[in-house]
Amino acid sequence: MSDDRCKGYREPTLSVMQQHDVGVWSDVEAHTDQGDFRGIILPRSETADAEHLVLKLISGYNVGLHYSTLISLTEVGRKEANYKIPEQEFPHDPKKPYVKLFGTGGTIASRLDYRTGAVIPAFTPGELYGSVPELADVCNLTTEKLYGVFSENMGPEQWIGTAQAVEAQIRSGVDGIVIGHGTDTMHHTAAVLSFMLQNSPVPIVMVGSQRSSDRPSSDAALNLIHAARTAAFSDIAEVMVCMFGPTSDEYGLLHKGTRVRKMHSSYRSTFRTLSDTPLAMVSRDNVQPLRQDYNHRRYSTAGEKGNADLRGIAMADFKCIPVFDDRVSIVYYYPGMKPDIFDSLIDNGYRAIIIAGTGLGHVNKPIYPALRRAQDAGVAVYMTVQTLWGYAQMYVYETGREIMGMGVVPLGNMLPEAAYMKMGWALGQSEDPEEVKRIMLEPIAGEITEREPHDGYLVHQGGLPEVADFIKHHRK
Amino acid sequence: MSDDRCKGYREPTLSVMQQHDVGVWSDVEAHTDQGDFRGIILPRSETADAEHLVLKLISGYNVGLHYSTLISLTEVGRKEANYKIPEQEFPHDPKKPYVKLFGTGGTIASRLDYRTGAVIPAFTPGELYGSVPELADVCNLTTEKLYGVFSENMGPEQWIGTAQAVEAQIRSGVDGIVIGHGTDTMHHTAAVLSFMLQNSPVPIVMVGSQRSSDRPSSDAALNLIHAARTAAFSDIAEVMVCMFGPTSDEYGLLHKGTRVRKMHSSYRSTFRTLSDTPLAMVSRDNVQPLRQDYNHRRYSTAGEKGNADLRGIAMADFKCIPVFDDRVSIVYYYPGMKPDIFDSLIDNGYRAIIIAGTGLGHVNKPIYPALRRAQDAGVAVYMTVQTLWGYAQMYVYETGREIMGMGVVPLGNMLPEAAYMKMGWALGQSEDPEEVKRIMLEPIAGEITEREPHDGYLVHQGGLPEVADFIKHHRK
Repeated sequence: MSDDRCKGYREPTLSVMQQHDVGVWSDVEAHTDQGDFRGIILPRSETADAEHLVLKLISGYNVGLHYSTLISLTEVGRKEANYKIPEQEFPHDPKKPYVKLFGTGGTIASRLDYRTGAVIPAFTPGELYGSVPELADVCNLTTEKLYGVFSENMGPEQWIGTAQAVEAQIRSGVDGIVIGHGTDTMHHTAAVLSFMLQNSPVPIVMVGSQRSSDRPSSDAALNLIHAARTAAFSDIAEVMVCMFGPTSDEYGLLHKGTRVRKMHSSYRSTFRTLSDTPLAMVSRDNVQPLRQDYNHRRYSTAGEKGNADLRGIAMADFKCIPVFDDRVSIVYYYPGMKPDIFDSLIDNGYRAIIIAGTGLGHVNKPIYPALRRAQDAGVAVYMTVQTLWGYAQMYVYETGREIMGMGVVPLGNMLPEAAYMKMGWALGQSEDPEEVKRIMLEPIAGEITEREPHDGYLVHQGGLPEVADFIKHHRK
Repeated sequence: MSDDRCKGYREPTLSVMQQHDVGVWSDVEAHTDQGDFRGIILPRSETADAEHLVLKLISGYNVGLHYSTLISLTEVGRKEANYKIPEQEFPHDPKKPYVKLFGTGGTIASRLDYRTGAVIPAFTPGELYGSVPELADVCNLTTEKLYGVFSENMGPEQWIGTAQAVEAQIRSGVDGIVIGHGTDTMHHTAAVLSFMLQNSPVPIVMVGSQRSSDRPSSDAALNLIHAARTAAFSDIAEVMVCMFGPTSDEYGLLHKGTRVRKMHSSYRSTFRTLSDTPLAMVSRDNVQPLRQDYNHRRYSTAGEKGNADLRGIAMADFKCIPVFDDRVSIVYYYPGMKPDIFDSLIDNGYRAIIIAGTGLGHVNKPIYPALRRAQDAGVAVYMTVQTLWGYAQMYVYETGREIMGMGVVPLGNMLPEAAYMKMGWALGQSEDPEEVKRIMLEPIAGEITEREPHDGYLVHQGGLPEVADFIKHHRK
């Protein structure tokens, strides 16, 4: 079998493929002891595990079949994917805004699923233009790959490096930033960038896809067009997540980086703004703010905001604080929890613990001695709510007051994930617990808000007049 | 000051009250170094902490003021609450169904907030009749207080005891069970009762309130009427949570005990069915199923289901398995997590770990050695998703396949809380990891479903034809 026909496969799976005379791009009927499958054998990356044969099913999903379960493989055809993306030079138009696209590993607009290792990522400007030609109608695009990790493997090194790369590009004068990112921890990265990058003069837009671009239902291209549109033209100069709004492709939503969370493991409409309204709706040709209290763009290469004096003022105001101390943990409370969960963190040198408590911010009485121990040991303990929507309000009930009496600090409606990221960032700035507390309780980017709007619970979806109006005018 | 005027207060707060000549039921203006407050001083329980003065604000919320912050207290009036509930004998009507109401500590229909300790719980049938006379239109009611703990302090002892008490009542022939419970961990208890009490011939309905009954917006009475209606008449013989549906009081919803979760820290509409549709809508006089695939009532004291033969068959089928081994923990994954979180659990003798992973069920690579250690040590590790909606699908991506290769078992769309409760229950039944795995993966009460319905994401709310129709016909 040629190299091409076994691309990425090693023993013991390779022998099984050779035995049944099938290879990469074979359309096969696979008979296994766990059921029958029909699909196309995908190429694998060199770092992929050696024990699975990966099929792209007709549904578009990939499935990994363990070599030991394979009873027979019958080739019924071959369907080589369009492996080579037609590369065309990205047109340059000096009248269009300049956007920088960073990649962190969650590949946008790939030909195949971006996480199997079998991807051919469309990532150079020319490849992106070949894949999503509409991008050239929006902006001048340059790209840079920062990392190549699955989003669950993003960590302090990548968060700091991304913030620094974004800062350098903004100072060099681009009109906006797009960051391609895997969706699993996109909201974590969005939160920490919201703290690290303050008073940005231009939009910083995170984007990803829930369905790879070889599937008819892919959200990759549309999300990317929405993100580029936002980076190039939006007046909202914040760290945002740009993803599908409703389950159909009627519009995208821009979510504030500190108030957004992935809420469904597979739907495209997975990202939601919690306890607040999203920042804006976005279509292929428009960004429609849903509120007015955002940080406005203070610089663009076109128009009056492009003048050198204004740019200087905007840049002077712009701050990057790229630090993170990872000695912080989230404890997700459950009834029946025992104090050893906290004791171990204290013993292991953690400096801070974010509790996701029940209700308004509660844990059970058996935990109290461990909370007192944390207080004595100088380990900062802060409270968020595992309901995800709503506030930690620890004055209301006896339990909350008792827990506060042991030094636990409520964090209002800060999401547990945002609190974790902010704490690592705060610990990176100071050894002084009082200064850390001051940083934690001072709202920086909407992570604590004074009140929840009437439509902040569960979902901001169709039915509101402005949404209906937007769909009517901007849907293609 | 008389005993009544300082009820429950001790030093050092008592001196401050005496110094300013105020007492329980004083309507005071409190000037503190953290701001000014106006409200009524509430009585306290004997076990309450000694350092706070508790005011019922005009908003209905209680606030605890630390004695050291008090600058002045000025009595502007007195508003003694109606301390004594008018007690009337609960009428007996042999033609009405028989319902047993158990209390666990979250008090229903109390005159004051049920968690301050200052409550006068309406709990005897006579008191409940005095507070919520509509109950007598629904059923014959008897009551029994099982526990008096805040819901965050419910644990294995209370879960087992509640299951046993419910079993005994059902075998004695009541038409349905209502369990009053604090809302914080109501979904945890609902899940474990769903596993412990199988094939119940009658409804088992958990109910609570998000606002105490002295507030105009209280949901206590309406939730209790809905729950009693359900227990007495509903054809759905499952463990359910009965709470407010939408944010208004248009209808209540019945949620399956394994698929429900508290999603807002303070709203009345806090309970939501996740990745599925609720079981039914409920009004004061009707229960309208929203689906057909539930366990049907097989016994009632009225009608044909009351015949002795049918009752015998129903009871033979009914099982109670009241066991729980608490050597299980939930690990809520966050990017940057280090393996010591798992190592400590292994070292501390836990038998099982439920991970709430990102996306389709992922953790980062630095955790892998700890997962291998857990596998070698015989600690069972199972995967759920922290998106809460959707499935753990670990075959889709490399990371998931690698993690499964280390023995981690995906739990479909089982909620992390339901998985924790089921695991404690499974560990209580067997020392054999294979038997525990068999129990975990076998759906018992809807905790794993094959597919998510189109309206299973985020919220089942107004707009559907059947909801509009229900409101039109049943709203009072």
